[in-house]
Amino acid sequence: MEEDLNLVGNGEGDPESNTLNQPLVKANRTLSSTPLALVGAKVSHIESLDYEINENDLFKHDWRKRSKAQVLQYVFLKWTLACLVGLFTGLIATLINLAVENIAGYKLLAVGHFLAQERYVTGLVMFTGANLGLTLVASVLCVYFAPTAAGPGIPEIKAYLNGVDTPNMFGATTMIVKIIGSIGAVAAGLDLGKEGPLVHIGSCIASLLGQGGTDNHRIKWRWLRYFNNDRDRRDLITCGSAAGVCAAFRSPVGGVLFALEEVATWWRSALLWRTFFSTAVVVVVLREFIEICNSGKCGLFGRGGLIMFDVSHVTYTYHVADIIPITLIGVIGGILGSLYNHFLHKILRLYNLINAKGKIHKVLLSLAVSLFTSICLYGLPFLAKCTPCDPSIEEKCPTNGRSGNFKQFHCPKGYYSDLATLLLTTNDDAVRNIFSSNTPNEFSMGSLWIFFVLYCILGLVTFGIATPSGLFLPIILMGSAYGRMLGAAMGSYTSIDQGLYAVLGAASLMAGSMRMTVSLCVIFLELTNNLLLLPITMIVLLISKTVGDSFNPSIYDIILHLKGLPFLEANPEPWMRNLSVGELGDAKPPVVTLQGVETVARIVDVLKNTTHNAFPVLDEDEVPQVGVATGAKELHGLILRAHLVKVLKKRWFLTEKRRTEEWEVREKFPWDELAEREDNFDDVAITSSEMQMYVDLHPLTNTTPYTVMENMSVAKALVLFRQVGLRHLLIVPKIQATGMSPVVGILTRQDLRAYNILQAFPQLDKHKGRKAH
Amino acid sequence: MEEDLNLVGNGEGDPESNTLNQPLVKANRTLSSTPLALVGAKVSHIESLDYEINENDLFKHDWRKRSKAQVLQYVFLKWTLACLVGLFTGLIATLINLAVENIAGYKLLAVGHFLAQERYVTGLVMFTGANLGLTLVASVLCVYFAPTAAGPGIPEIKAYLNGVDTPNMFGATTMIVKIIGSIGAVAAGLDLGKEGPLVHIGSCIASLLGQGGTDNHRIKWRWLRYFNNDRDRRDLITCGSAAGVCAAFRSPVGGVLFALEEVATWWRSALLWRTFFSTAVVVVVLREFIEICNSGKCGLFGRGGLIMFDVSHVTYTYHVADIIPITLIGVIGGILGSLYNHFLHKILRLYNLINAKGKIHKVLLSLAVSLFTSICLYGLPFLAKCTPCDPSIEEKCPTNGRSGNFKQFHCPKGYYSDLATLLLTTNDDAVRNIFSSNTPNEFSMGSLWIFFVLYCILGLVTFGIATPSGLFLPIILMGSAYGRMLGAAMGSYTSIDQGLYAVLGAASLMAGSMRMTVSLCVIFLELTNNLLLLPITMIVLLISKTVGDSFNPSIYDIILHLKGLPFLEANPEPWMRNLSVGELGDAKPPVVTLQGVETVARIVDVLKNTTHNAFPVLDEDEVPQVGVATGAKELHGLILRAHLVKVLKKRWFLTEKRRTEEWEVREKFPWDELAEREDNFDDVAITSSEMQMYVDLHPLTNTTPYTVMENMSVAKALVLFRQVGLRHLLIVPKIQATGMSPVVGILTRQDLRAYNILQAFPQLDKHKGRKAH
Repeated sequence: MEEDLNLVGNGEGDPESNTLNQPLVKANRTLSSTPLALVGAKVSHIESLDYEINENDLFKHDWRKRSKAQVLQYVFLKWTLACLVGLFTGLIATLINLAVENIAGYKLLAVGHFLAQERYVTGLVMFTGANLGLTLVASVLCVYFAPTAAGPGIPEIKAYLNGVDTPNMFGATTMIVKIIGSIGAVAAGLDLGKEGPLVHIGSCIASLLGQGGTDNHRIKWRWLRYFNNDRDRRDLITCGSAAGVCAAFRSPVGGVLFALEEVATWWRSALLWRTFFSTAVVVVVLREFIEICNSGKCGLFGRGGLIMFDVSHVTYTYHVADIIPITLIGVIGGILGSLYNHFLHKILRLYNLINAKGKIHKVLLSLAVSLFTSICLYGLPFLAKCTPCDPSIEEKCPTNGRSGNFKQFHCPKGYYSDLATLLLTTNDDAVRNIFSSNTPNEFSMGSLWIFFVLYCILGLVTFGIATPSGLFLPIILMGSAYGRMLGAAMGSYTSIDQGLYAVLGAASLMAGSMRMTVSLCVIFLELTNNLLLLPITMIVLLISKTVGDSFNPSIYDIILHLKGLPFLEANPEPWMRNLSVGELGDAKPPVVTLQGVETVARIVDVLKNTTHNAFPVLDEDEVPQVGVATGAKELHGLILRAHLVKVLKKRWFLTEKRRTEEWEVREKFPWDELAEREDNFDDVAITSSEMQMYVDLHPLTNTTPYTVMENMSVAKALVLFRQVGLRHLLIVPKIQATGMSPVVGILTRQDLRAYNILQAFPQLDKHKGRKAH
Repeated sequence: MEEDLNLVGNGEGDPESNTLNQPLVKANRTLSSTPLALVGAKVSHIESLDYEINENDLFKHDWRKRSKAQVLQYVFLKWTLACLVGLFTGLIATLINLAVENIAGYKLLAVGHFLAQERYVTGLVMFTGANLGLTLVASVLCVYFAPTAAGPGIPEIKAYLNGVDTPNMFGATTMIVKIIGSIGAVAAGLDLGKEGPLVHIGSCIASLLGQGGTDNHRIKWRWLRYFNNDRDRRDLITCGSAAGVCAAFRSPVGGVLFALEEVATWWRSALLWRTFFSTAVVVVVLREFIEICNSGKCGLFGRGGLIMFDVSHVTYTYHVADIIPITLIGVIGGILGSLYNHFLHKILRLYNLINAKGKIHKVLLSLAVSLFTSICLYGLPFLAKCTPCDPSIEEKCPTNGRSGNFKQFHCPKGYYSDLATLLLTTNDDAVRNIFSSNTPNEFSMGSLWIFFVLYCILGLVTFGIATPSGLFLPIILMGSAYGRMLGAAMGSYTSIDQGLYAVLGAASLMAGSMRMTVSLCVIFLELTNNLLLLPITMIVLLISKTVGDSFNPSIYDIILHLKGLPFLEANPEPWMRNLSVGELGDAKPPVVTLQGVETVARIVDVLKNTTHNAFPVLDEDEVPQVGVATGAKELHGLILRAHLVKVLKKRWFLTEKRRTEEWEVREKFPWDELAEREDNFDDVAITSSEMQMYVDLHPLTNTTPYTVMENMSVAKALVLFRQVGLRHLLIVPKIQATGMSPVVGILTRQDLRAYNILQAFPQLDKHKGRKAH
């Protein structure tokens, strides 16, 4: 990646950054744009990942040398790691579930105790205090120890799998803070889920396992050296994200599809199989744990099964006439979803201004949201009427415990408060209650309205605070409320159950906001365990995604753009066909090249005065060949900055200008060491006599870089760049002539982003909005 | 694609083609290998598809000119076509189901009638005669009218989506023969399914809709011109194959995943959504039709629901100890699956020898298999003991009708023949019966053994005959038999139901033979409608795929290789890293280039004397540029043979050597006309005065072909070729020197196939078997 650090403006606290059409990290009017982006809640220096195989002499030698046993080792380890990712993700998900249910459970029991004694104010103080405390823990950890743990983490993982390296994203500290923070935030009753964080935790586990430990304490196991590259890490993190979704929703197939549809940029059939294995392990772990909990050893953790919101025992019937309400749900879901995206975008910009003021402001913002949430959850049920219990329903009514579908709250005996049933409980239970079927009159329209409006507000204000937070649950809560309301409003027009309306409402709002289809459909299928819902769910999802897409991009795309992460889209913009890579290359500073055997002084100079991460290596033919004039230049390949730094650090210098033998370099550089990224060479002191020496760059050069001709259109170059997963793409001239350089430019991820190109070529913008499908 | 027709040996009847390690169509010891392959049951001339956008001046002009309305037209039409694909696939699947159930139903009723009267010989004659007649219809249609309709069609579709154009594969005749042939073959009680054919039918529908009719009678609708290219046709056919699987198994998500995991080579998120839409439409159609049939308007068609083998009402329990039988099922399934692949391979080679003898032999082979099948199905139940009916079971026992779980056959009243229940019924009913749960003693071990051995033999001998035939059902039948036997053998060791054993056995054998995981898992989930089976199914599938993979490739890969279809694998072979594209190019005849403004004589000469499908267009700089010596050559791009033929046909000749203006060529060549493939120019008579004229090739040249440098490794070039979906890949030199050609070679699909490279470079073979994962 080429970077111009001197041109970069730091986005934090920048007064211009609230212009609505710009990312939060300010971009410059140069082609190679800012290497800064918002990772979690922290502005970080980002780099590109290298998914290309660096075919230099050392790699080729190692490749030839690899025995069958080593290949088997590699394959075996790959599967073992996939299994371990599933195992640990399952265990941590279990831990989080247990902790949340127990902490929130005891909190609610205590509140219920005060309520039964009619000590309402003590109850409020107790409820608010506990929530504030829990929020404080989550927020302080996130702000002071691991800012990258804030938010859901899914956009950053998406960017990582697209080829953007985000520092500190997958570290051990981040993971621990994410676990504890997630427990705190969810147990505090904030309107956020543990689903997004679980995806991030799964990815952290995968990354830590792949590199054999934390950044500072790694197992230097020989077997693991095969995983010391960006490609294998990418595959592992894909497994981790699938395992995370699976653990969150107990949905193995949904997890695989989520990774495929929403998260991953590159996908191979072999990966499908391995992610599937990871999620299978997660399911087995969760099942075992549920069996243990069913014997009552998990404290307040309930006797839930593998299915979260089981509606399989309910026979839903629907007919052709039901197409009207179904369409209606889809359309409204699409509109509401895109409205949610729109307003969340604004709120996140506003929050960024507050958060940029300093760490203490971040904590205070979180606490303010927590306070507001607690007061609403506790206070609003007083507004609702008490409803008499229906004796024909088998369930216990009213209850005063931790869960249950008919909460007594402040009502007299034999009555229940429908709003308290929805609000004064954990989010998971709230969803379960609102999905409950065959209870058409359980919730009054007024209570549902209050619930819906409250969760719309909470959903908007909670997401941006500095705690781990998932988007799934807030959207499910909002969606189920509007769905159930629609069902109640439909009245006797259709025979569809109100619980089914709630399920469909939740699905439609998710499709309207997140724009997933197949994975969401399967997740809902696995959540509700009712296959007969499939066709109806599919139609709702398709409609609401279509409606949503006609207004704005998906919420993840909005967040990616907002954070300034240089995500490469799958489809090139139409105007990219009218621009050639040659023109693009001309808009950049001239390419810096090195000779095949280069002086140390020149290398030091180049490393000091440029920020490029790779340099083309050229050879000048001194011995004339048949038919080729002297002075013909030859492109030998591309050398990485990290490898040049390595050469300087190892002082692999030659006293004369000559080509080296393969064994000379092999002694000095083990292949797996070259996979490491180092580009800090400030501590390398080079004497002036050393400066006059030479380095043979040939054996370290990737001799097979991907190239495009200068008249290639940007659209096609982008397809190549993204499909093959490149970091650098060389531009070669179309004219064959002695004396010309065989490479006229070099393109990176930042150069191929539509946003950056439009900064340098604003005249192309007229075609904006016409996107190739 | 480069072809050397004079070197090609026709595989049909070739005595050498039974060498077991070669494809059926004989390959030559040259790098650019045979362009012939077995499509269906016919040896055809195959070509590569062009998924690259041909960015010539005309395309660029058309692209710039496209209004927003036209883009919307295109998007709208794309979705309409996806909807229509689903609609027609659903309707045709309905038709096939109705026809099969009614024809087979009346046949079985008649047989039952004779059995009740104890007229066993008349029954046999009647049964065998009906089956022979039905087979004759299917076989004659396939052999004489549409040889490409034979077999499942899935390997050819897989190859098509990989970029191999197989002629007559998606025509109207093929589709109609496939529909009628499928009805005949399935109703004849042959051991084959309608699942594979339905996938082919779905793809035919998609292709026909996309091109607006049959090859001879097309709607020349302006809107459809946007679909007149290989990329959009590819997307449509992907939709069609997903719709086909969905219609076959009534499994919408499974259909999408099948297309993704097994069929498609390229995949985009947008495609996921569109295939999903197609399958949703199929499900709605099927549901409507089932509602109609439930009111009894479908003749003998049963009252089946959307789920084929519904086991949702059964509560399966399983525990940790069950891991042993589950592992056992998986391991045996993997071994049996790979054994099946092995023997099917041999049998297909043997059948090829018979089929090659002539058309009448193909028909006779089919009839022989049908006769053998009928005699076994009718005769074997006499070997089984009669079992007394269990009065505690609610179902009617014994029955003598068309379906039912307890067939009386030749038994006295109050007794039933378990083997007749399995054999003397339609294949679908047989699966339903063997999956039946809570009936541990229904089938005796002896009967299951007979059933299993019979279907192993039938599964091997039936697949290769010249009728439409699917592989899914035979494998399910075999697998369920072995699963149920294993369950019976396990006895009281586990609490797993025998019906569940049958389901798992079927799944494991499919994974062992076809090597699919996620799609298969979802298909079984949707077939059986029981989510609790998910974890256990996943484990079984993973084990049997792993076991199977350690023996041989999947059955589809075997068939692809056998048919000689040049399928490009996703992973390059390890030895491809040690070979550069330059070396590969040197093994080919020198590349034939054209000048930017070329004489007609030279074009005619090139077209007549080569079979290349594309030619690089070079410009020689006559006007010296600054810093560039005169005589420097410039690569302008790549021109397709089809476009050269078009130029000759349209007589677009210039009297002087000059560059043309854009409007001149635009008048003559509408952009969409250039998308058509024409390469037959025998009927173009060119006068000798015309031969001296010139053609300006610039405006028709694709100016942005993908290129690789000559030192690029074959492995990386293959990744580029496959990921971007190319037809031609230019090799450019790494040395910059005046006088050199800017293009040193051209690579096609055939050049990059491991099999072909090893023919030219046999020394590379030592590393064979070490495959990069």
